[in-house]
Order: sequence, then C-alpha cells, then structure tokens
Amino acid sequence: MSFFGIAESQAATLVRAVTADEHDRAALEERFARATWTGLAEPGDRVAGELVASLGAARALTALVDQHTPERMVEAVRANGSDLEIGELAEAVARWRPRLKSALALLSLRQAARFGAALVVPSDPLWPQGLAGLGHHAPLALWVRGRASALAHLERSISLVGARAATGYGEHVTMEASSGLVDRGFAIVSGAAYGIDGMAHRAALASKGTTIAFLAGGLDRFYPSGHESLLNRVIASGAAVSEVPCGTPPTKWRFLQRNRLIAASTLATIVLEAGWRSGSLNTAGHAAALGRPLGAVPGPVTSAASAGCHRLIREYGAECVTDADEMARLAGHAESGPIEQRAARGDESANRLRVLDAMSVRAARTVPDIAARAGLALTDVQSVLGALELERQASESELGWVKTAKGR
Amino acid sequence: MSFFGIAESQAATLVRAVTADEHDRAALEERFARATWTGLAEPGDRVAGELVASLGAARALTALVDQHTPERMVEAVRANGSDLEIGELAEAVARWRPRLKSALALLSLRQAARFGAALVVPSDPLWPQGLAGLGHHAPLALWVRGRASALAHLERSISLVGARAATGYGEHVTMEASSGLVDRGFAIVSGAAYGIDGMAHRAALASKGTTIAFLAGGLDRFYPSGHESLLNRVIASGAAVSEVPCGTPPTKWRFLQRNRLIAASTLATIVLEAGWRSGSLNTAGHAAALGRPLGAVPGPVTSAASAGCHRLIREYGAECVTDADEMARLAGHAESGPIEQRAARGDESANRLRVLDAMSVRAARTVPDIAARAGLALTDVQSVLGALELERQASESELGWVKTAKGR
Repeated sequence: MSFFGIAESQAATLVRAVTADEHDRAALEERFARATWTGLAEPGDRVAGELVASLGAARALTALVDQHTPERMVEAVRANGSDLEIGELAEAVARWRPRLKSALALLSLRQAARFGAALVVPSDPLWPQGLAGLGHHAPLALWVRGRASALAHLERSISLVGARAATGYGEHVTMEASSGLVDRGFAIVSGAAYGIDGMAHRAALASKGTTIAFLAGGLDRFYPSGHESLLNRVIASGAAVSEVPCGTPPTKWRFLQRNRLIAASTLATIVLEAGWRSGSLNTAGHAAALGRPLGAVPGPVTSAASAGCHRLIREYGAECVTDADEMARLAGHAESGPIEQRAARGDESANRLRVLDAMSVRAARTVPDIAARAGLALTDVQSVLGALELERQASESELGWVKTAKGR
Repeated sequence: MSFFGIAESQAATLVRAVTADEHDRAALEERFARATWTGLAEPGDRVAGELVASLGAARALTALVDQHTPERMVEAVRANGSDLEIGELAEAVARWRPRLKSALALLSLRQAARFGAALVVPSDPLWPQGLAGLGHHAPLALWVRGRASALAHLERSISLVGARAATGYGEHVTMEASSGLVDRGFAIVSGAAYGIDGMAHRAALASKGTTIAFLAGGLDRFYPSGHESLLNRVIASGAAVSEVPCGTPPTKWRFLQRNRLIAASTLATIVLEAGWRSGSLNTAGHAAALGRPLGAVPGPVTSAASAGCHRLIREYGAECVTDADEMARLAGHAESGPIEQRAARGDESANRLRVLDAMSVRAARTVPDIAARAGLALTDVQSVLGALELERQASESELGWVKTAKGR
C-alpha cells in the first residue's frame, strides 16, 4: 500500500483515523483506494464505476498510477465480464490523470481527519441500499460528517426538496410535512439549500427527528455558508454526506449529481415548492428515472413558486400529495417494492422476537451488538428497531438501544 | 292526439307555442308526448328511457294512458328487441301513474309557453350530441329558455363547476379560466349555483361568450333565487336548460341528475374549487364514468376549499390543470375522441372550403341555410364555423354568419 509514494504507515494512520476500520489489510487498502477515487472521478462517472466494479478500487487505482495502457486495462476488465470500450476508457484516463497527485489526495485525507469525516464504502453495513439503483453511476464511496449511524435511517427516509425562493406557504407546508413525517418514524433527507431544503432540516430537528443533508461539495466547508450553523446542528444528531472529498468546491454538475444521491438513497422524493425551472425538478427527475415514488405538493395556481410542482403532477406522473399521511403512504408503497432488500414479511415477526430477545431493559446496546446477539444482519436489526421504536417497545439513547417496559 | 282528453287543436296550439315546429303531425305528436314524459319520469329513469326508445314516446304514453298491462307492454318492447323485465316495468308504471294527470301536464305546457321555454327533442339538430353517452339514462327532452341556438355551442364547450362556498382564490381562478376559455372559442357550461358556478357564468358573460346554465328544477323559477338576475342575463345571450317541466321544484335527486347533464353535454369538466364532500365531485364522477376528460384546479393544501380538487387528482385520475390553455388542451383531446360524431380530420379542409363557399360577406346567413347551401350536416357546419370564427375568417351577428374579408 504505497500509492503515490505515501508511506504505508502514514496512509494506514490516516485512513484509520477517518474510518476506525478493523485491521484487515486488503479491506483497508480497498478503502484507501476508494477514498482516492472520490477525488479522481467526478460524481456519476460511469466508466470509473464500471472499472472499479470490475477490478476493485485498489487494482484499478494501481493500473492508473502505474500508467497501464487502456488496452491492458480493457483486457483486465473484459476478463471479469465488463464490456468497457478502449475509447471511453482512454478518455476517462485522460480525465482522471490530471488529478492523480499524491499531495492532493493526502490533503483531502488530512482534512477529512481534521473535520471528522468518515468514509463509508459499499461493503459497509451502513452503505445506503438504495444507491444500488444507480448501477455503475453509484458513488464509489461516501464521506460522512456527524453520526455515520444515521445512514441506517435512510432505510426509512423521505427526501423533501424544493425551491430556494420559497414562499411563506411553501415553508409552512414543508414544516408540517417534515415534522409529520418525523412523527411517523421517517428520517428527513434534503440538500441544505436555502428555502424548502433548509426548512425541511430545521423542522426535522425541531421534532427531534433524524435528518441527513447531502452536499455537493467537500465536507470541510458547509454550503451555503448561511446554513453553516444549521448544518452543524444537522450533524450533531444526524449527518452530512458527500461523495466528493474535502477541499472539493460545489459545482453545477456536482449539484445535479448530488440530487441523484438524494433521490436514490430515500424511499420517496417529495417536491414541496418549485418554480417552472427549479433545480428540485432535477431531483424529481432522478427519482422518476429510478422508479422511486415521486410526490409533489400542489399550491395556488397563481403562485409561480408552485408551477414546477403542478408540472410534475401533470407531465411527470408525480403523485399529488397534500399532507404527511399521504407522503408516508406514497413512501410505503416502496417498502414492499423491489428496492428493499430486507427480510420478507413472513420473517418479520421472527426477527422482532430475536431482536427483543437480544436487547436489555437496563443496558443500552449498539446495533452491531444486538445484531451479533440476535444472529441477524445489521439492516434487519435496524429495520426492526425502527418499527419497535414507533411502537414504543424500544428507545434509542446516546449509548445505544434499550427495551422499554412495553417491549419486555 | 288527444291524451288526457286535451282537445287536439288545443294541444297543437300549446305545443306549437313552445316549439314552433313544422306541421308534421306525427312529429308533433311525438314531441307532445316527450313533453309529457318529462313530467312523468324522474330524470335518469332508465326504464322510461328504454320504453320510449323502444316504442316511441307517443306509443309509450298511449300504453300508459290506456292502462296496458305490464305484460302487454313488455311484449311490445320485446318485439322491438328491448329486454325490459315485467317486474321493473310494473314498478315503473306504479311510479309514473300518480303523475298522469292532464291538468298537471297542461299547466306545465302553459307555463312553458308563458316563460318562453322551448322543447328540444333528440331528433332536433340542436340536441346535444354528448347526451348520447348517457344511453337509456339520457333525458327524454330538454326545456330551454333563452336562445335555443346556443345549444349548438355545446359542441365546443367546457363545464366549469365547483363549490358554493368558494374562496376569493377560487373565484379569481374561475374568472380567469372562464374568460380565457371564451377567448379560445369555448362555451361555458355550469349549474348557476352560488360560488364557482355563478362566477363561471358571470365571467363568460363579461367576456361576451356563450354560457349555458343547466338547472335542476323547472324553468318557471330560477334557482337559487339570488341568481335570478344573473340567469336572466344568461338567457339573454345563452340559455338555461332543464329536463323537468315548468312547475317542478329542484330536489336533491334532481341536482345530482342535473350534474350528469353538465358532464355529458360538454367536452370536458373542470372542478375549480371543491371541499372534501362538495356536490361538484358528483359532476366530476359523472364525467369520469362517461370517459370524458376531467380536470381539477389545485390550490393551497392548507385550504379546505381545494381538498376535493386534490382528491380528484389523487384518487380519480383528474388532470391537474392550472390555466385556460391546459383546460382547452384537455378538452381538445376529446375532439378527436369517440364522443364526437363529426367528419374525420381528412374531410375538414374540404368542409371548410364548402362552408366558406356557402357564406357571403354581405348577407348574414343562418346555420341551416349555410348547411343547405354547402350540403353538409348542421353539426359539421357549426364545427367549421367555430374554427373559422377563431381564425377571424367568419363572424356571427344577430342575423347569422358572415364571411370576413379574411375569409374571402
């Protein structure tokens, strides 16, 4: 493990610092390579996704660092069943090479360590399952500030997005929707922009819900700057997530790609207020393309700030949703759909019993601890805990989960 | 022709007074019988519709007056291919018989003559083609006050309906919609109720458009009484229509059946504002059942007066429409649909040419005159004239239609 000539011990220290990973050398190497890849390829780079999926991040990075010819790379990926073309790979290498600087990679790792940004990779239990819908356009890794464990809540989350130029009506409706959905056990995902996004996070925090912000730039700087204190509150109980490393400024492209993450990682996307050309229509478009439930909140036809929502209902088949109940039902359709990789309904009651058996009324236990005791996958445990929490049979504290008297 | 012992000469005078019909004795008798039937059967009475369709109104009325047994009536209708059952016919006769009083029939005819209510029957060219969609639930005849010729405009009409308890928002949107649709050559149909309906008529009048009110009671009394002067303005340039004879009060049932006429006689139905249980949802239900385009205007989700509209969009597949353009497009879909019995698209330009050839720049000509000169059906001429008027190639005056300089 000595990409870019970074001393092995130094790299290990850095990556451990941001991941708290086990001492599995191959996994650590792969993780380090993925971290590096987040700084080489722009979000949504299909060729990078396909190359990494085919060779593994470490081997793909080695090929790049060691300047393998595109012919040699294609030969390697073809052996693994990929059908990447030489031409597109050569173009991609030309895109990546200018960023292949060890100083840059090191800097972003140091910043990540400094800002407490953890790296989550697809093999991690916390990796959002919904991102699989993006195929080779999925992110190679995610940087997370705040509580990485909040990512588990994406399994029962709804994205609330909308225009920066929100009206009082839009903000009011967003506030009601966000707090109503929190009351129904949903985590609230948004993009931390001014207007609707900000209100979605704020109302979720006020209702003591979990909220997660997907950002278009690196996590060393919160954007927009006026939402720095809001984002600090978001990461105190939830998380801020980005697929680009620290030091990366947000660009128009990265905003659009960030929108695909919002759509892909949640059960449903709701547009609360949007002008005719609002950026939130892009998020809606991603949700529709992914086959995820898409809702739009109507408003006065005399308000330009609702024109985009009406357009989504008219032209894009968005469901007309008017309150949190309808939004929850919209997302509910997805729960039994093909996106979820959870246990079948029939296993649910068995899983419940095993999770309750694995919990204690007095001692708070972490999700991995409960999973180990119950002999269940982390995602299954998280899903059951969410349901138990709604029924007040379990509750979460700083230290972990406890059974309530009702769950005994 | 001496039902109920009304002298033939007296009946002929009365019916001529309301219809100005030709001197075709059989047609006059049929017309008189239909007028009588409107006072015997409640709106939407399928058995009456089937009996009259099978035997003709006069023969069906004679059978009733002469107290034929249900067995004999069924034998007669079966000979004509109807499958009416003896049981339902016997029940129906029991419903009709108490109303079989010559004094009542005479009174309603005298009132019709007094209030200038004309009778329109299915064989008349002015009979709204859309009513055919109602099958045996279609009205047996229509009473019309105002300009009976306005019924021709139903071929290019939209119904704008909504709650009596309208908000300022709903009234504003209705005003914009109604005047915008008039500008696009549509006649505006509604139910003359307070709130949305009244505004739809009012705005159409203000825009010098044709507007038609369908009423649930007889045309001797305008309901609601607070809209008497509005309805007098409606009939000055358009028409008020009812399927019940003069002297019939509006009832809950008749309101619901009136709604089916609004839905059936127009190209599309738009609900502009409606509470969760608004009566206008009934009109919408008729439109949906008939397969007619149905639109609903969204509003603030915080407004109870828009909840019914959102419900229509969510649960009944109503299209979300936000302005007159979208409403016109919604109705436009129907123009090429199966409802219309007009000439196929390919014939349109030929028909245009023939209609223009049949018109004069100086001499105003009536639609029947133009139809005769052009050798085309009245409905085809009306349809072409509507299009020509939109393109300012033709214009209508009190005396009839003229070609403009542009149409020469």
